[in-house]
Amino acid sequence: MEVFEAIKTRRSIRAFTNEEVSEEEVQKLIDAARQAPSAGNIQPWEFIIMKNPQRKHKLAVAALNQTFIEEAPVVIVVCANEVRSGRGYGARGAALYCLQDTAAATQNMLLAACALELGTCWVGAFNEEEVRKVVNVPRGIRPVVIVPVGHPAEKTRSAPKRSITDIVHYETFQEET
Amino acid sequence: MEVFEAIKTRRSIRAFTNEEVSEEEVQKLIDAARQAPSAGNIQPWEFIIMKNPQRKHKLAVAALNQTFIEEAPVVIVVCANEVRSGRGYGARGAALYCLQDTAAATQNMLLAACALELGTCWVGAFNEEEVRKVVNVPRGIRPVVIVPVGHPAEKTRSAPKRSITDIVHYETFQEET
Repeated sequence: MEVFEAIKTRRSIRAFTNEEVSEEEVQKLIDAARQAPSAGNIQPWEFIIMKNPQRKHKLAVAALNQTFIEEAPVVIVVCANEVRSGRGYGARGAALYCLQDTAAATQNMLLAACALELGTCWVGAFNEEEVRKVVNVPRGIRPVVIVPVGHPAEKTRSAPKRSITDIVHYETFQEET
Repeated sequence: MEVFEAIKTRRSIRAFTNEEVSEEEVQKLIDAARQAPSAGNIQPWEFIIMKNPQRKHKLAVAALNQTFIEEAPVVIVVCANEVRSGRGYGARGAALYCLQDTAAATQNMLLAACALELGTCWVGAFNEEEVRKVVNVPRGIRPVVIVPVGHPAEKTRSAPKRSITDIVHYETFQEET
């Protein structure tokens, strides 16, 4: 699939068929994720691949009862390795670069999934402490995104977007006084 | 260009020819950026398009004297609109979703640029207060990435990446005790 097409046709999918996602597909998603740029090439990302139904259920509960999460055959929990980023770039690394790098990796993953005709959803609304327990991560590793992955069982429309003229500013954000 | 190819061949480019970047190309980059997912479809992104040489020079100085920035014909400053995200999702919105959403938008932009054979670099190292002054943004709008855009004047190798086995964990991050 062509880049611009993937960027434009990617949708948030919250309903999945029972069809499995192959290990090969999962590997392609992770391989796409790790190609993202990262500050100082530190690559502060960790990916937890979850298929166990009981654990997916606990994860869905920790994600404010978004039950569609557990209906996906595979769920990927993206974690930011604050230790790696902090070692390289101190507080700015741990609080900013770490979140940006993992978000860029996640976006690569969603676009790759779209090209593979898999459905995904970027889930950010969850109780971090509860998710920590479910995936057993130590301090310094922060769960930042939950990505359910499956074959889409719904067609969704594109979300309405702010116009280009609304989001673009020339030279400065506000005119200088 | 095919999605996986763009994901794999995108490089950080820090040397540019004198060739201009057209307004049409800039619009394609912004259009790609705004297709990114965002928490609650809040779209907390603002893009400042900068071409003025004096201003680009000031920006490069504010970015810790990374002079290659001002050599790009176009520089895009990506800002996170903390007000929009905070209104929707409080502290988590302003401190997390806002950074993730703008990072996903930036990654779309870099991939789109790669497909257009334009070179870009994700610059995160800069003095935020100094950049604020250069682009005249009020509190609540945070500059988070600087993206110089131009025609590449260098070929760079792919950055070495952590292996898939190093970054993938199954079911939990650590084994449960």
